[in-house]
Amino acid sequence: MALSWFLLSFLFRSLYAHNDFFTSIGQMTDLLYTEKDLVKSLKEYIRQEENRLEQVKEWADKLDSLTNTATEDPEGFLGHPVNAFKLMKRLNSEWADLESLVLKDTTNGFISNLTVQRQFFPTDEDQTGAAKALLRLQDTYRLSANTISNGDLPGVVHKSRMTVADCYELGKIAYTDADYYHTELWMAQALTQLEEGEESTIDKITILDYLSYAIYKQGQLERALELTKRMLKLDPDHHRANGNLKYFEFQLEKQSTAEAEKKEVEDK
Amino acid sequence: MALSWFLLSFLFRSLYAHNDFFTSIGQMTDLLYTEKDLVKSLKEYIRQEENRLEQVKEWADKLDSLTNTATEDPEGFLGHPVNAFKLMKRLNSEWADLESLVLKDTTNGFISNLTVQRQFFPTDEDQTGAAKALLRLQDTYRLSANTISNGDLPGVVHKSRMTVADCYELGKIAYTDADYYHTELWMAQALTQLEEGEESTIDKITILDYLSYAIYKQGQLERALELTKRMLKLDPDHHRANGNLKYFEFQLEKQSTAEAEKKEVEDK
Repeated sequence: MALSWFLLSFLFRSLYAHNDFFTSIGQMTDLLYTEKDLVKSLKEYIRQEENRLEQVKEWADKLDSLTNTATEDPEGFLGHPVNAFKLMKRLNSEWADLESLVLKDTTNGFISNLTVQRQFFPTDEDQTGAAKALLRLQDTYRLSANTISNGDLPGVVHKSRMTVADCYELGKIAYTDADYYHTELWMAQALTQLEEGEESTIDKITILDYLSYAIYKQGQLERALELTKRMLKLDPDHHRANGNLKYFEFQLEKQSTAEAEKKEVEDK
Repeated sequence: MALSWFLLSFLFRSLYAHNDFFTSIGQMTDLLYTEKDLVKSLKEYIRQEENRLEQVKEWADKLDSLTNTATEDPEGFLGHPVNAFKLMKRLNSEWADLESLVLKDTTNGFISNLTVQRQFFPTDEDQTGAAKALLRLQDTYRLSANTISNGDLPGVVHKSRMTVADCYELGKIAYTDADYYHTELWMAQALTQLEEGEESTIDKITILDYLSYAIYKQGQLERALELTKRMLKLDPDHHRANGNLKYFEFQLEKQSTAEAEKKEVEDK
């Protein structure tokens, strides 16, 4: 087990080595500690925001009960000179204090921390590099997208699952590289996880759009057409899907006409 | 009871009538409804902020547990190629999404509402006018500051208490008018309420500062000195209090020397 983990890790590192920047585990380890620091700073921001919001809520609750009482009997309420004075004071001074509290900026500490650390962050290229290393690993070990996504890699210690968004991201990186084979594998995996009920900000239509195109580019017109129909069930007005539907149907008809003609010629 | 409320209310209105703008109960009633609307808008802002903060907290919690696991065994963690890919993706894309969430401005609806309504708000002059009307009412009815602050006005329906800040505000308005008699009454009331344990943003030193000066201006040097000593117990380095201490002691000495000399002359 330990040996296979070591081999995998070694393989991954060598697959990954074409990448200029984050080649060493040491550099990536630094990033883990950077992230830990950022989380600490973020938690401090959350604490300040909760505190600020608590004060705003106290004011809102106080004013809510006050205005409810006051508007039930405005004349009676304002007949009390202290109420009249307090109303003047509230509107002239206190709402301005509340406004300052609403506009108070507590983001400064965290945001400047993030800005400083960002210069050491990986770039789009690093992200793409890591994704492609993962795709090469998949091919080398002949692993299914499902196996990788579930984290069932042989011998790894820290099992890590991929989300719908992670799978979608891998699919998109393959797509940008015109690698429709991996696009299909990973968009299909994203779709499966969505259908199994995983919550995600990525929707089925977006995934089906990539998936049907990747399948079409691999020459499987009928499957592409079927997926396009699924898209249109979810969104009947989808512009590209409506266009593709006509195009795929036209192409399929052309194909079957050509086949029929070919058969006719052969039969003669 | 109802009659006395009516009379009080009428008196208050006539006392108050010198003020140009908020002379009618009708105009003040409109302000109550404005305030009610603002509270509604504020509650919507709170709802949005709570929602936003909840998302930030979910991210922080997720990352907190993730970075704790990761930094326990960085090599093992990063040996898993999916972890390495996810780290790249997180740093390159997801922290930026979190940054947008942190910087998301939810204040817009409430603040523009407040800005629109502010043009109808009472001014400093209106607030001062209402305060002075209250002071005249106090004199007319010979009411103690305590009676008014507790809302124990004869016959009023909506009993309304004054906070330390309200009493302090009344005292300050009297002070600005060089009305040291009412300054003393209301600063003393503010101090009493603080000493009874009421929570306030106004501190004892600030109140004692006004109070001792108002008492000094009414010629009661010894009481002014005593209050200045109380101030210095709370803040031994208070600049003005230290100056006043010397000055009051010097004045008191001058007084007693003068009296002694006068007595000597009389005795001769």
